[in-house]
Amino acid sequence: MSRSFIVAGAQLGPIAKEESRPAVVARLCAMMREAKARGAELVVFPELALTTFFPRWWPESQDEIDRWFETEMPGPETQPLFDLAVELEIGFHLGYAELTPEGRHFNTAILVGPDGAILGKYRKIHLPGHRDRQDWRPFQHLEKYYFEKGDLGFPAFDAFGGKLGMCICNDRRWPETWRMLGLNGAELVVLGYNTPLHYPPAPEHDHLQYFHNELSIQAGCYQNGLWAVAVAKAGFEEGCELIAGSIIVAPTGEVLARTQGSGDEVITARINLDRCSEIRRNVFDFAQHREPEEYRKIAER
Amino acid sequence: MSRSFIVAGAQLGPIAKEESRPAVVARLCAMMREAKARGAELVVFPELALTTFFPRWWPESQDEIDRWFETEMPGPETQPLFDLAVELEIGFHLGYAELTPEGRHFNTAILVGPDGAILGKYRKIHLPGHRDRQDWRPFQHLEKYYFEKGDLGFPAFDAFGGKLGMCICNDRRWPETWRMLGLNGAELVVLGYNTPLHYPPAPEHDHLQYFHNELSIQAGCYQNGLWAVAVAKAGFEEGCELIAGSIIVAPTGEVLARTQGSGDEVITARINLDRCSEIRRNVFDFAQHREPEEYRKIAER
Repeated sequence: MSRSFIVAGAQLGPIAKEESRPAVVARLCAMMREAKARGAELVVFPELALTTFFPRWWPESQDEIDRWFETEMPGPETQPLFDLAVELEIGFHLGYAELTPEGRHFNTAILVGPDGAILGKYRKIHLPGHRDRQDWRPFQHLEKYYFEKGDLGFPAFDAFGGKLGMCICNDRRWPETWRMLGLNGAELVVLGYNTPLHYPPAPEHDHLQYFHNELSIQAGCYQNGLWAVAVAKAGFEEGCELIAGSIIVAPTGEVLARTQGSGDEVITARINLDRCSEIRRNVFDFAQHREPEEYRKIAER
Repeated sequence: MSRSFIVAGAQLGPIAKEESRPAVVARLCAMMREAKARGAELVVFPELALTTFFPRWWPESQDEIDRWFETEMPGPETQPLFDLAVELEIGFHLGYAELTPEGRHFNTAILVGPDGAILGKYRKIHLPGHRDRQDWRPFQHLEKYYFEKGDLGFPAFDAFGGKLGMCICNDRRWPETWRMLGLNGAELVVLGYNTPLHYPPAPEHDHLQYFHNELSIQAGCYQNGLWAVAVAKAGFEEGCELIAGSIIVAPTGEVLARTQGSGDEVITARINLDRCSEIRRNVFDFAQHREPEEYRKIAER
């Protein structure tokens, strides 16, 4: 497969609490069709793309937790997305809440090939927010309560003619995420996010939410010489405003495409995985210039 | 001492190959006076601030190397800078080439208190460029030939009412530098750079040199919740154009002051070290949210 291809980011507008999975999947399918029509070979959907961002509520029962989670992938309600991918011969990335047969809960993303096969899975490692109910907040951010920390590391998968990695939402703020993916050989990182515009513990930074999103992604790309497609669930969802600003970023850190609204919206760009070497063979030639023995504290608890 | 104070960045325009140390020190002293007049308690000078950027030439003899290095600090030619600091009661940061009594060569920076005492020393760890003569280049970048890798780690020093760290030029591009300084408690990082606008191995990125400088520094500040003063030696020096763009950056990643030219120029901003906690107690509360056991590869050769 060619290492130069068109990639799409498929930003989602808000998903209502009572919106059904089939209704959401229909929205995803519509964007998959648009991505294909615009020449894309891979379309990236956001984090937890099948439901509203449920960690904003304190659950009253285990059932109320589990209703947000998928016990199989594909399942009956997500099968149409896989079928359409096969029909159109387009790959996709999807974030969803995963409940394993052992009863473990993860914030998960998968990479699916144009033949409908799951090529890779990632489980979110940097879970933000809090574990306890905090009634002073206008909304909760209970990811540490709903999910276990991911147990799959930061792998890069052979796919689309190169090496693809994934991370999810808050992971993108951490330089360690990008460095681990870079060291593992990722040439393209795909990720989704649900990021409230309002951050209750430090509201004085609310106006910087877009900036911090782009800054983290651009730095991660430049400092590791890799591409990224970063896709939001955006807009005013159940009383909570989520930032938009989905972007496709080059290994130079340059933003090549950006959404213009807060609803369902597709962006595309042609990417060439060979361009990673412009950075990796030069300023960030890791073998030549990294000094790992000086970084020990980074890996110590 | 108050944790809120005014800091100055003192950008240097070009230094000619034949310009004498006393002539350069006079330029530094003039900017130190301006910084003081504008209320600064600390003034930051760039990397290798006493000479032209000599690693651009292949040396013909050991003497030709050693002429660029200081064997004592202060020495007779730099003593006026220390004397003026004591007279004005202002601290400073200075980059210079250090030749130790054991004959070791380092790219070094020191932090000097308003009483003229050296409070801390750093030796550059990420040496860019090459070790061998490469005649295809319009100018050499022989830092790996002129200098040994620094042997002092990334310490943070008790100074100016808080914890101050240093790094030098290419160090600023590496997220590990900022993370090590952050983990060591730095609240303000001061640094200097000599960055050619033209990067011979990848000239297609020349127009991004300013962007990459700011991106790396802004990300380092935000992702570690610390302040930075980053100061250039700038302008057209011995046939080589150096980027300017000296900046003072807040723990939010926001640029609060920026030089407007490529010559000798002072910028100032009021910084408050207490603002680091806005970031460090929240999104980047390391104790709560870092996952070091997932980062092992970062510290492995």
